[in-house]
Amino acid sequence: MKPTQLRTQSKFRFLISGFVAIFAVCIFSVANASDPLSSWNDGPAKKAILEFVSAVTEKGGRDYVEPAERIATFDNDGTLWVEYPMYTQVLFAFDRVKKLAPQHPEWKIKQPFKALLEGDMKTVGASGMKGLMEIVMATHSGMSAAEFEKEVSDWLATTKQPRFKRPYTELIYQPQLELLDYLRANGFKTFIVSGGGIAFMRPISEKTYGIPPEQVVGSSVVAEFQVKDGKPELVRMPKIDFINDKAGKPVGIYQHIGRPPILAFGNSDSDMQMIEYTMAGEGRRLGLFVHHTDAESEYAYDRKSHVGTLDKALDRAAAEGWIIVDMKKDWKKVFPEN
Amino acid sequence: MKPTQLRTQSKFRFLISGFVAIFAVCIFSVANASDPLSSWNDGPAKKAILEFVSAVTEKGGRDYVEPAERIATFDNDGTLWVEYPMYTQVLFAFDRVKKLAPQHPEWKIKQPFKALLEGDMKTVGASGMKGLMEIVMATHSGMSAAEFEKEVSDWLATTKQPRFKRPYTELIYQPQLELLDYLRANGFKTFIVSGGGIAFMRPISEKTYGIPPEQVVGSSVVAEFQVKDGKPELVRMPKIDFINDKAGKPVGIYQHIGRPPILAFGNSDSDMQMIEYTMAGEGRRLGLFVHHTDAESEYAYDRKSHVGTLDKALDRAAAEGWIIVDMKKDWKKVFPEN
Repeated sequence: MKPTQLRTQSKFRFLISGFVAIFAVCIFSVANASDPLSSWNDGPAKKAILEFVSAVTEKGGRDYVEPAERIATFDNDGTLWVEYPMYTQVLFAFDRVKKLAPQHPEWKIKQPFKALLEGDMKTVGASGMKGLMEIVMATHSGMSAAEFEKEVSDWLATTKQPRFKRPYTELIYQPQLELLDYLRANGFKTFIVSGGGIAFMRPISEKTYGIPPEQVVGSSVVAEFQVKDGKPELVRMPKIDFINDKAGKPVGIYQHIGRPPILAFGNSDSDMQMIEYTMAGEGRRLGLFVHHTDAESEYAYDRKSHVGTLDKALDRAAAEGWIIVDMKKDWKKVFPEN
Repeated sequence: MKPTQLRTQSKFRFLISGFVAIFAVCIFSVANASDPLSSWNDGPAKKAILEFVSAVTEKGGRDYVEPAERIATFDNDGTLWVEYPMYTQVLFAFDRVKKLAPQHPEWKIKQPFKALLEGDMKTVGASGMKGLMEIVMATHSGMSAAEFEKEVSDWLATTKQPRFKRPYTELIYQPQLELLDYLRANGFKTFIVSGGGIAFMRPISEKTYGIPPEQVVGSSVVAEFQVKDGKPELVRMPKIDFINDKAGKPVGIYQHIGRPPILAFGNSDSDMQMIEYTMAGEGRRLGLFVHHTDAESEYAYDRKSHVGTLDKALDRAAAEGWIIVDMKKDWKKVFPEN
């Protein structure tokens, strides 16, 4: 081989390897660009989501929906973050009872506070919804809005979930974060519509899910505007304002958002009315439920569960065209990396 | 002059005139770009707005506010659209009583309906808040959310204001439209926070003000989720849910938006608490009131008015640093062109 020939060959090889590298980058980019839901396994759920978003965003298409009308609502507990074995907000309320106990000597003899302070969770449980409401009222009211926000933020920043040893704000579902991003990238406005307290979620919703406080709908206590020593503030009163659960969810959506979602995502029978309301609208709609089937990566529970019961919705799903997202089958991973 | 010289000269002239034209366009654009509030006269109000927006958007500046926190709230009646001599929604309610009368034979003997149907407005007025509430309940509930929305849209599309002979949705304030656009262009999220019914404003808020339904906060009736013949719908009940007025405005802001505004704009004593709440926050804030002083272009009213009373707020403004926007002095024009 002549030196010139050699040089030409080596130049050619160099070019080839360059092309290969560029080609590889392109393939990778295309693969990535074409998979905005990379933590979702291929299957009927992922397919339904991709087809739905494609249909409602295709200009001139039969199912096209104007960006302003692309409202997507997500339940929070069990849909965006872990809710098992107990709703995070209830644990927050329990911790607050312990923290506030020195200022409430009467709790030493008053149930269900007495039982809670003694660690007798069976008696707390037996006090039912009435007992739980007393605990919630005692821990969620009687302070300013700003004070409560600080309590919530501090607790969430310092408390770890016992099994996974991570803050609750990290025990969020990676596939759902991708879905929220994907929807927003396609012109959707994403909302939380939760039975949980609106003021409990708002301090972390923007940082955790990219959902600003004004796009969080939830249960609330009555608030009062008061001017104390010339300083105006909002005071949280010991009275329920609204329970944003079950049939309350469509009502919360009506009062807060003012137009029906075209996509709604829940995980329990408490989300059924929200999904029914969403699917009842004209045009193409999508209703989904997370089914907790992954005891190893998260938890497995449904019909008989004390939290996030998924029973009637599971029975009705096929006939109604609701998508059941099987956590174990449909998700590659559950939580984001540490 | 030689023919060549002539051609050169004319070419030169052509070029010059081209430059002049381009230059003129540039000047015009710069003038326009530098005056986003072209319907506002130079004066203390316009100056305060421009300085405020400049201060909170200047990165690294002392008063910088993150875009997410740039919440601006506007009252509607008398702040964004005409409210004199009577709130538009009350006129809508009156018209609905007349429309519904055939289905309500009992109104022929029941006050204040009887008086209203007979055109005896003095008796209607004498029935006070109680009578007005009866009229509002009878005309704003007992139908689905979708039906009510259609009623409102149809009425607003077909009804003209008696003096100006234009639909109410055209009797909006041009300077405020410019301000809303200017704020949004500077990263603000704009909200309506009105004593009026949330469901009365939402059908027109996006088209009229560029404010989507989910950014409208207002008074509401209780709604119920019902499934009728297999069809889910929201039914408006004859019961007040929330009155978003006076001390209710900061509460409505808390429940709906979840963070305080940094700019609030009202026009009456009913907006005073919203402005107080806004100004009480840390960092730079701006509170403004429209003062209706232009009897020729719109109306002139304040302390003794039966609608949009501006009395205490007018007295307190100077000491509190609230900006009083004098409609006649501060605005070049009131309504948009036909």
